[in-house]
Amino acid sequence: MPPAVAGVVALYAPPVVDQATNGGGFASDNASGAHPAVIEAINGVNGGHVPAYGNDPETARLEETARAEFGSEVRVFPMLNGTGTNVAALRALAPPHRAVICAETAHISIDETAAPEAIAGLKLLGVPTPDGKLTPELAATRLVDRADLPHVAWPAVLSISQPTELGTVYRPEEIADLARFARENGLSFHMDGARIFNAAASLGTGLAAASTANGVDVLSLGANKNGTVFGEAVVFADPDLAEGFGIWQKGSLQLPAKARFVSAQLNALMTDGLGLAIAGDANRIASLMAERLSELEGVVIAQPVEANIVFFSLALEAAREFAAGSEPNRPLLFEVGDHGLIRLVASWDSSEADVEQTVGRVSASLGG
Amino acid sequence: MPPAVAGVVALYAPPVVDQATNGGGFASDNASGAHPAVIEAINGVNGGHVPAYGNDPETARLEETARAEFGSEVRVFPMLNGTGTNVAALRALAPPHRAVICAETAHISIDETAAPEAIAGLKLLGVPTPDGKLTPELAATRLVDRADLPHVAWPAVLSISQPTELGTVYRPEEIADLARFARENGLSFHMDGARIFNAAASLGTGLAAASTANGVDVLSLGANKNGTVFGEAVVFADPDLAEGFGIWQKGSLQLPAKARFVSAQLNALMTDGLGLAIAGDANRIASLMAERLSELEGVVIAQPVEANIVFFSLALEAAREFAAGSEPNRPLLFEVGDHGLIRLVASWDSSEADVEQTVGRVSASLGG
Amino acid sequence: MPPAVAGVVALYAPPVVDQATNGGGFASDNASGAHPAVIEAINGVNGGHVPAYGNDPETARLEETARAEFGSEVRVFPMLNGTGTNVAALRALAPPHRAVICAETAHISIDETAAPEAIAGLKLLGVPTPDGKLTPELAATRLVDRADLPHVAWPAVLSISQPTELGTVYRPEEIADLARFARENGLSFHMDGARIFNAAASLGTGLAAASTANGVDVLSLGANKNGTVFGEAVVFADPDLAEGFGIWQKGSLQLPAKARFVSAQLNALMTDGLGLAIAGDANRIASLMAERLSELEGVVIAQPVEANIVFFSLALEAAREFAAGSEPNRPLLFEVGDHGLIRLVASWDSSEADVEQTVGRVSASLGG
Amino acid sequence: MPPAVAGVVALYAPPVVDQATNGGGFASDNASGAHPAVIEAINGVNGGHVPAYGNDPETARLEETARAEFGSEVRVFPMLNGTGTNVAALRALAPPHRAVICAETAHISIDETAAPEAIAGLKLLGVPTPDGKLTPELAATRLVDRADLPHVAWPAVLSISQPTELGTVYRPEEIADLARFARENGLSFHMDGARIFNAAASLGTGLAAASTANGVDVLSLGANKNGTVFGEAVVFADPDLAEGFGIWQKGSLQLPAKARFVSAQLNALMTDGLGLAIAGDANRIASLMAERLSELEGVVIAQPVEANIVFFSLALEAAREFAAGSEPNRPLLFEVGDHGLIRLVASWDSSEADVEQTVGRVSASLGG
Repeated sequence: MPPAVAGVVALYAPPVVDQATNGGGFASDNASGAHPAVIEAINGVNGGHVPAYGNDPETARLEETARAEFGSEVRVFPMLNGTGTNVAALRALAPPHRAVICAETAHISIDETAAPEAIAGLKLLGVPTPDGKLTPELAATRLVDRADLPHVAWPAVLSISQPTELGTVYRPEEIADLARFARENGLSFHMDGARIFNAAASLGTGLAAASTANGVDVLSLGANKNGTVFGEAVVFADPDLAEGFGIWQKGSLQLPAKARFVSAQLNALMTDGLGLAIAGDANRIASLMAERLSELEGVVIAQPVEANIVFFSLALEAAREFAAGSEPNRPLLFEVGDHGLIRLVASWDSSEADVEQTVGRVSASLGG
Repeated sequence: MPPAVAGVVALYAPPVVDQATNGGGFASDNASGAHPAVIEAINGVNGGHVPAYGNDPETARLEETARAEFGSEVRVFPMLNGTGTNVAALRALAPPHRAVICAETAHISIDETAAPEAIAGLKLLGVPTPDGKLTPELAATRLVDRADLPHVAWPAVLSISQPTELGTVYRPEEIADLARFARENGLSFHMDGARIFNAAASLGTGLAAASTANGVDVLSLGANKNGTVFGEAVVFADPDLAEGFGIWQKGSLQLPAKARFVSAQLNALMTDGLGLAIAGDANRIASLMAERLSELEGVVIAQPVEANIVFFSLALEAAREFAAGSEPNRPLLFEVGDHGLIRLVASWDSSEADVEQTVGRVSASLGG
Repeated sequence: MPPAVAGVVALYAPPVVDQATNGGGFASDNASGAHPAVIEAINGVNGGHVPAYGNDPETARLEETARAEFGSEVRVFPMLNGTGTNVAALRALAPPHRAVICAETAHISIDETAAPEAIAGLKLLGVPTPDGKLTPELAATRLVDRADLPHVAWPAVLSISQPTELGTVYRPEEIADLARFARENGLSFHMDGARIFNAAASLGTGLAAASTANGVDVLSLGANKNGTVFGEAVVFADPDLAEGFGIWQKGSLQLPAKARFVSAQLNALMTDGLGLAIAGDANRIASLMAERLSELEGVVIAQPVEANIVFFSLALEAAREFAAGSEPNRPLLFEVGDHGLIRLVASWDSSEADVEQTVGRVSASLGG
Repeated sequence: MPPAVAGVVALYAPPVVDQATNGGGFASDNASGAHPAVIEAINGVNGGHVPAYGNDPETARLEETARAEFGSEVRVFPMLNGTGTNVAALRALAPPHRAVICAETAHISIDETAAPEAIAGLKLLGVPTPDGKLTPELAATRLVDRADLPHVAWPAVLSISQPTELGTVYRPEEIADLARFARENGLSFHMDGARIFNAAASLGTGLAAASTANGVDVLSLGANKNGTVFGEAVVFADPDLAEGFGIWQKGSLQLPAKARFVSAQLNALMTDGLGLAIAGDANRIASLMAERLSELEGVVIAQPVEANIVFFSLALEAAREFAAGSEPNRPLLFEVGDHGLIRLVASWDSSEADVEQTVGRVSASLGG
């Protein structure tokens, strides 16, 4: 594993270009299409009429799939997109005027246009971290003494991203530690699992071990970045927390009319290990990318590459040249002093040839 | 056209059963699947990587399609579901603490779990109507004199459903009259076009004549009920109104990551008249249903059947029996005194055989 | 008691002029100043330093006063204004996306600029009433069957105004009936008691009999219209409902920094019957006004005058002339066809001479 | 001026005790009562009836007073409390889903229970500062490139506290620099002037030079901490920004029914320099306190004492003993490692004897 650059990656610093991607590129896993088996699944449930809004047989089957994956107590709800999934999940966990402890780099804090604030009415307490990962010690810095109510927005939720936005992955025991911390401090424990398949594949476990089995109360189960046409899910470890969630789902504009199509895609990913397998493919490509990039003079791998995301830094001019040359496939570029920090994301369909082509372009940008 | 029952249909009265549908049934057009050409369109854009969040070529093509359909000035945004489309559109038109004049039976008022109130911060001023249609005279009853600000939520938007939730269709000149009324009173003019294809097919016009060409400022362009897997759109007649809409789209949890898949479906419906054709099929089936039902003793067609929705009333016991016998395909049933008012909705895939089977069951319920 | 005009008073119809008042006029009880004993009470607690935000001895004394008035279980919170009091109370009773059943003429529905919608996220289900008073039968028209969740905003609160905005007063048994209805249907029961002193004086009871003792869960205890400088309170009949209310109070922008000054005024009104006495004075003046006006040819008293509010109707031209001649003290005028409906409100400081002067001007407007 | 402790004061760390105050104590300026001249002013406008909600002669006079103080273009609105004033002001400046750049220690960020988030829908971007003061350089770290819309909440407002929550005061040229920065970056410029009288007195200027005359667009004009019973105001430097503010005022639950009483108090403070004079008294007492405390062994003055607030640190045990001994007048205590950081706030009525008594108790806690 290449060494991490010291210091905090200030992800809220202005990226200087639009997010985009290349033909087989690494701008984002959202730039990839859908896996054929997922399209097949949509086709497979297209026949006939079924009750709308989740009262259909395929969504009933999703409940079974989820119980097999996460345990017999869980409840699952098909959702429409990632931001909506996170916001609806948070609304189920805390009323307005409370706070959510999260990493400063959390997607909910920097990439969701203040929807958690404006829609859920919550304050996000972003904690600086070296690698995107919260620890009980870091989270504890944002606890508030009850005595300070009602002036201070009292933390009600602990939220982590698995993997983090920096590409690092919480190990099961780290999740369990955070769960214990949450429980001891009266916090609900939310996981933004936009790339949960990548995390589980990285850990070599199932989805549960990477999330609910180690104490996560509510999981935003991401699927779109891992080969679906659309659709995510919310998984509640405890059915009591799911009580009344239908209202948050509908009220947060996330109730799919033809829910069978979301459920079918999720079922496909959770059947025969498809989702884990293709996420594992993406992870392997990212590791290869990091390995090959680290061989280049002038490149520093900025974070441990544990899932499908690679952060690397290089001289600013070279970074700008590489990014511009990636049009319309520009990856995220963060300018930090005289260096450029670039994020590459491998997708389920990324290939070794894509890696070599990209490494070649980085090398060329460096004058190699 | 069968005669309408006199009086207001109180759609907010408690439906006594869950919404559901039958094998080839009439519970809802949301119970139907996707048209094969729409699935084909998804497949057609599935290859390779493209920028996410709407910066892709297929969404660029949607802009062209929309301009061809609605006029060279329009802006279009791919969205995720109907409630989200309406709420985001309303947020673009009015800040919190303003009001929206709509029919008492409007979907935004009775079927969106107060999302317009809770998310957009708007008050809905529902006006009783005989047939779901607003008129300038009816809308004027909810105007407020400016002198009364800031105590009274001042109407900022006029919103109509095309077709209405009662299955009636605004004629172009009726829309133009409402547009003039809106303009004269400083209101923006929103149309919930969840079934706009059905309305346009009913009028024998294009989508524009049924909406923006007659003065609608912002159209919620429905597609899901008319044969898509998911996805709707917002169409702005005036690009100035669309300024900054990206924030309302993202903030209202309606920005599709892989927007190409929404755009491809909308493009399919707006190419070679597919959407209008299949909506016209549904309309024809609804007309046939009304005609055949009206031949039954004890059945009264409760509203003019101008699109794909049929409301009919019959004795309460018979209505209950018919609804129960439709499991798991129960249509909406409103109990009004000793009568049951039943809503049937034809889908793009409904057949004449479905009609005959349904009419037979109604007849049987009536003891026929 | 003069007979009521048949039909619903459409209070949401546009008042044609600003609300204002005259030297000793009847435009609004908000136009009056503060009772000397209330100013005295402010002075009386002005010495020295005390903890802010309600942790002071005078607010502790308010708890005692409230327990003496309403019962040993109640909790009371000093608040800033009426709209804020209602909104904070509603937020304590229902999460966003739920509904509140209220009279169509309720202050929360027509006079609070959609703050209950925008701040509390609630839908208001206004029921037309002949006299501003809800009954179990009227309220039942807005109940929703649970099966219809999550599409329909489910009623969570029943809210009534005591007295109503039309000047009528709920009798204790009517409140008890509504409380039973609320309990049976899982609704919390809120009372907007902006003029609760007037209601209690009208009934000849204490504040409790007019509210919590007959089943109201949460009372917005109005004081400002009855002789305070500022300040209202929220009274919870059940301490469990008050759990965590401090956050709703602060978050709804209603936590007074120097709470002692609100508490002192409330204590003054609830000591030695002051509030009831001066509200009774206002009621008597209103009754006298109604009696004297009803003697005029061409005047119809439009609602039973049971508190300090008089609605009367007269020919439109005369109504306009009277209103205009009241400048800067214009009462509310609602134009209904060829009649003008005028609202007069007596204050704690209104006098018989004020009545005679006003009746004289009405008579003059009528050409008398 | 005593030297400041190096490093950032983490005001969001958990204060270990409730805020409270002593008989002539220093827990908060909110613990003090009202100045006699202010009570006198309330009395002075108590006679007769005037239009409610700000349409009264005394509020008209407030407009004149504000124009004399701030310039002929300004608009002023009487408000109810500080949090409400800030939230309503921010709502007038930015729609939901935008961001506000402020100091990490800003009152809006740490003391308003997420009301700016939940009510205004805004994200607060708190910047760590050494002394509570933003600079263009510090603020620039939270700017976002437009290209990143709509994912990132785009800063729309720059908000500073004058004086800061750490007791430091922006000099006119510092405000002008920030105003230039705001203008250049498309930000509105808000000032939380909860203690603006103290800042102006410290600078030896009028209120305008401490705020609007140097580029502040909207000022939360604090009065309650400086000797009023209740009431604050919003001052708009530009009448265009005030357009429609009445709705934000009412909708943010901050419209006083009997506005004359707020206006009278504000007029009193802005007449004959009363507010500046009594704020200057508080400032002088704070300076004396800092001077006397700094003579004690083991005490470090933690921030420049430029207004009426003193932060000092001492050994944790001593800090705890002093705080506990102040009951019921406990000042804020922040535990930072083995030290306690204590905040003392002088009020308009604090005396030199109060200082000596307090210094004596600190000395005793230190074993002096």
